[in-house]
Amino acid sequence: MATERTRVDAKKLTDFATKALQKVGVPEEDAQITADMLVATDLRGVDSHGVAHLAAFYIRWIKDGLINVKPQVKIFSQTPSTATMDGDQGLGFVIGHQAMTEAIHRAEKTGAGFIAVRNSTHFGAAAGYAMMSLEHDMIGMAMTNSVPEVVAPGSTKLAVGTNPLAVAVPAGKKPPFVLDMATSVVAAGKLEMARREGASIPEGWAIDEEGKPITDPTKEGGLLPLGGTPTLGGYKGFGLGVLVDILCGVLSGSSASILWKGTLETRDSAGNHFFGALRIDSFLPVENFKKSMDEMIEAFEALPTLLGIKKIYVAGGYEAEIETDRKANGIPLRAKVIQELQELAKELDIEYDL
Amino acid sequence: MATERTRVDAKKLTDFATKALQKVGVPEEDAQITADMLVATDLRGVDSHGVAHLAAFYIRWIKDGLINVKPQVKIFSQTPSTATMDGDQGLGFVIGHQAMTEAIHRAEKTGAGFIAVRNSTHFGAAAGYAMMSLEHDMIGMAMTNSVPEVVAPGSTKLAVGTNPLAVAVPAGKKPPFVLDMATSVVAAGKLEMARREGASIPEGWAIDEEGKPITDPTKEGGLLPLGGTPTLGGYKGFGLGVLVDILCGVLSGSSASILWKGTLETRDSAGNHFFGALRIDSFLPVENFKKSMDEMIEAFEALPTLLGIKKIYVAGGYEAEIETDRKANGIPLRAKVIQELQELAKELDIEYDL
Repeated sequence: MATERTRVDAKKLTDFATKALQKVGVPEEDAQITADMLVATDLRGVDSHGVAHLAAFYIRWIKDGLINVKPQVKIFSQTPSTATMDGDQGLGFVIGHQAMTEAIHRAEKTGAGFIAVRNSTHFGAAAGYAMMSLEHDMIGMAMTNSVPEVVAPGSTKLAVGTNPLAVAVPAGKKPPFVLDMATSVVAAGKLEMARREGASIPEGWAIDEEGKPITDPTKEGGLLPLGGTPTLGGYKGFGLGVLVDILCGVLSGSSASILWKGTLETRDSAGNHFFGALRIDSFLPVENFKKSMDEMIEAFEALPTLLGIKKIYVAGGYEAEIETDRKANGIPLRAKVIQELQELAKELDIEYDL
Repeated sequence: MATERTRVDAKKLTDFATKALQKVGVPEEDAQITADMLVATDLRGVDSHGVAHLAAFYIRWIKDGLINVKPQVKIFSQTPSTATMDGDQGLGFVIGHQAMTEAIHRAEKTGAGFIAVRNSTHFGAAAGYAMMSLEHDMIGMAMTNSVPEVVAPGSTKLAVGTNPLAVAVPAGKKPPFVLDMATSVVAAGKLEMARREGASIPEGWAIDEEGKPITDPTKEGGLLPLGGTPTLGGYKGFGLGVLVDILCGVLSGSSASILWKGTLETRDSAGNHFFGALRIDSFLPVENFKKSMDEMIEAFEALPTLLGIKKIYVAGGYEAEIETDRKANGIPLRAKVIQELQELAKELDIEYDL
């Protein structure tokens, strides 16, 4: 894709996003957490979930009163390893960061920590929360439900969110294992990108009202669950999507998104989450674990490849390479994103210095 | 499929399997646990993982010394919520049952319990262990790694097991949510069944050494990870398969199956597992949770269906219908399975009374 891009320094981008969020009333520490998460996502190459959404999603939702910038978060817990959190409609990044921190604290004490969160909002990419576990030598997981965009096998009506789940696992010399996947064939962001670029989408991503494949991303339709058709395991992707709905929506005391009420906008910005942490040394000495992770990753990378394939990647390996490049050379933002950030600077009366 | 089948009473089948296992040295209680698990799998319609494997897998492996019928199981734990277990090469059903029981005990005390198990053997279907949580009003999960049969995206060499994962969640009036899925497009058992019936397999299940689709199940090849091609999310299925390898193999102190040593037979019968339990009332009153599960399942079932589709099923719903029929009318065994059980009876000198 020959889209024009401009490299922007990560630190400057973080400062800019922090200032913008503060301007719409987000307290400094919360603005910092949010900006860090957004830019960390861009650094890892996940352009669909980073600062491209700052103006169009989060700042707009805050201005529209859909996000509470001063939430009164409540934690309900009767057990040392688990808790439920009410996010009071706070910014998903802030609520998510707090909940994952809670999960890690619990895992420190008991070996395992799990937090179900209701009444939160869109939290960006799930990987960032799961990866908070890495410096604590824990396995982290994070997931969220979201407004229905995926069909159930046998139907064409939107029934589940793209309901992503992420798991992060530390390795030794190798980059950590980081799996972050929508439970649909693709995330909605991939259609958004195809629309923006006037590109078509491959058969197998989405279907129309009659169940026929869509290749024009501007057409109305529903995403297929991971696996695609029932013959190729679409019921597995659907099952995983429903599982995310259960852990995030039902277990937290909210509900599966198929039952969400409200306007399209309140539903678009909504999200319930589920976070988990497992302390590795409560199973195995951390050193042995990391050595074994490295050996496994090296064995996968040593597999013979098909013609035209340079390298076999284990989840997170490709993103780690992008991160190294972007940390050194800046984040390549598309012209459209640059333009949106410039307009945002003007609108909020802050300096545009990227 | 017009394969001839004979209905066999579940209780009689359980007693037969128990006797057969005792005959090869399995202690009575362990034989009972194993027979219960096998027949429960047949009752739910998962014919590929039930008594069809009794003679060909478990009895043979016991006779060949690949399974230790009197294992000295060890549990290592320094935390209230987590533990590692060494199965001492015991029968996977017995080790799995004990480990899941441990996970449930821990969840009773702390809200969450997780057990990683090394040095175990093939444990049948994962669902049975996850479902042990249901009567305790817990969410249960179970997974296992297994000998490599699935390719990594970009390669055609067998790299990961079909590495199934199962999650069970209680509902109220509705049947429980039970997701039990290989992380490949299909389980190896589906190819086994196609071979037995002389049927072809759909494109998208497996590829040959050159990466071309296989439709003849007798041809050498590798299963594709869930998602299939990279465009349709095959790296997600691969990521899930590796995750199961990490939790079962690496975290337990064994290894990912790509690094397993030994003969094909020792590798075929081997397995490391991971079990988890979450106490629902440590998040939310059980009554509210179950009501919300019912509402979600009913909303999915109420979706409009495509022409020719009778009903939208949530994971576990279809199996629950089969179970009702089979409990009432017996388990329909294929002629080949009947024949194997008759030969087994003769070989072990026990009565064949099915």
